[in-house]
Amino acid sequence: MRLTSDQIAQFQTEGWLFLPELFDPEEVALLKREAEAIYAQQRPEVWREKSGAPRTAFAAHLYNDAFGALGAHPRMIRPVEQVFGEPVYMHQFKINAKSAFTGEVWQWHQDYGTWKRDDGMPQPRAMNIAVFLDEVMPINGPLLLVPKSHLAGDLEAAHDVQTTSYPLWTLDEATVTRLVDAGGIVAATGKPGGMLMFHGNLVHGSAGNITPYPRKIVYLTLNAVSNYIRTPTRPDFIAHRDFAPIVPGPDDSLRHLARRAPAVAEQAA
Amino acid sequence: MRLTSDQIAQFQTEGWLFLPELFDPEEVALLKREAEAIYAQQRPEVWREKSGAPRTAFAAHLYNDAFGALGAHPRMIRPVEQVFGEPVYMHQFKINAKSAFTGEVWQWHQDYGTWKRDDGMPQPRAMNIAVFLDEVMPINGPLLLVPKSHLAGDLEAAHDVQTTSYPLWTLDEATVTRLVDAGGIVAATGKPGGMLMFHGNLVHGSAGNITPYPRKIVYLTLNAVSNYIRTPTRPDFIAHRDFAPIVPGPDDSLRHLARRAPAVAEQAA
Repeated sequence: MRLTSDQIAQFQTEGWLFLPELFDPEEVALLKREAEAIYAQQRPEVWREKSGAPRTAFAAHLYNDAFGALGAHPRMIRPVEQVFGEPVYMHQFKINAKSAFTGEVWQWHQDYGTWKRDDGMPQPRAMNIAVFLDEVMPINGPLLLVPKSHLAGDLEAAHDVQTTSYPLWTLDEATVTRLVDAGGIVAATGKPGGMLMFHGNLVHGSAGNITPYPRKIVYLTLNAVSNYIRTPTRPDFIAHRDFAPIVPGPDDSLRHLARRAPAVAEQAA
Repeated sequence: MRLTSDQIAQFQTEGWLFLPELFDPEEVALLKREAEAIYAQQRPEVWREKSGAPRTAFAAHLYNDAFGALGAHPRMIRPVEQVFGEPVYMHQFKINAKSAFTGEVWQWHQDYGTWKRDDGMPQPRAMNIAVFLDEVMPINGPLLLVPKSHLAGDLEAAHDVQTTSYPLWTLDEATVTRLVDAGGIVAATGKPGGMLMFHGNLVHGSAGNITPYPRKIVYLTLNAVSNYIRTPTRPDFIAHRDFAPIVPGPDDSLRHLARRAPAVAEQAA
């Protein structure tokens, strides 16, 4: 799994790149099932919306085999190593629900703003990855990206701890308008199993979801090892302190786990 | 302006019909300019969101020449008369803003639920009309329609006076899920000047708008004259009591007004 030069050029100029159906239906079905099981647990890594619906489950790669395999999957790790030219480690790992009917808004922001201010990350050399577990449609709260906005650098932001259930450094309306006038907006939609890569300074947000279609995304951040965080303030399960390079697993790791589960059930029957 | 038999069949089976670019750019520019002028006024017919941004201006056809011309426009009135087989009157007239960045959600509902309960309308023989003043895109809070849901009749609903700035009789999640499983969801998108017609029992809603793109729609209800409301409880400017049939004006009424305005300005200069 290597990116073409056209793909790398698109990432550099637009700030994002989408790889459709990178994971197959069997792999996605496993991850969806495991995500539901995690959301059903009461644990500090699982955050909820005002309605009680799950919003985010953090660090699932550390306590779930399937998400552990995803977090070291070569189809995800190799392209990111290729962009940065060095090994990467897991800075953050979360499963975002954007639940049916009640999924809340995420205001416009850059992720690097948070990594720098809250975690002491030196450079925006960390990659955001979104792996789609459900179909992401225009109508169920897709990530909205502002192409080329990563070239604007680290923008001034205000700490929003009110609008939604998760504190964010958000951008003002004049800044967003200026960037959208230049770059437009792309709704990142696609079938389950697609993978979106986007730059840590790319401005993005998402509207609420009022449809009956849930929109689960595994959303993780791979940081270049040399760019490890210097002054973390957030809990370990939100900004990891294990800076060891990820050693990619075998390509069939998820498929292997998917096929193991029914076999165990059959033995028990 | 007459609907074809295919168009009438689509309305009967799907519950909605879209006529793209029914009004031309000159006509739309006039209406946009006049809408902004109305939103700038402090008057009881102009309702605002929690942020102070305009949400809805009621009854503008009664105090603004351009919207008066729109409210009697033959391209809008004739098709609705054709569907109902009788003259119509204006039951409600509003300009909905769905402002950039702050436009709020409208929960899933049927409009006839409100007309029956609050206004004493005997039958769902009133037509919802949406005239697009801005481009309605998938990302700026389009109306989301559940096709065929008008065939489910008048559904049980609860009075929501909390979620948003306008009280609505809204449907529960199980009902919406059942109807969407059967009919799907259509996002009503299109260029400025497009006109959407939809049935009073068609289930619809819209998500918030976080984009810098405003999404103004003139949203009005034409009721069959024989179906006049019997027991109104809402103010006159929300549920009109003038049941006189609308006499359609000339086809060039908006264009005529659009061309008059600059001439006056030139005279003054």
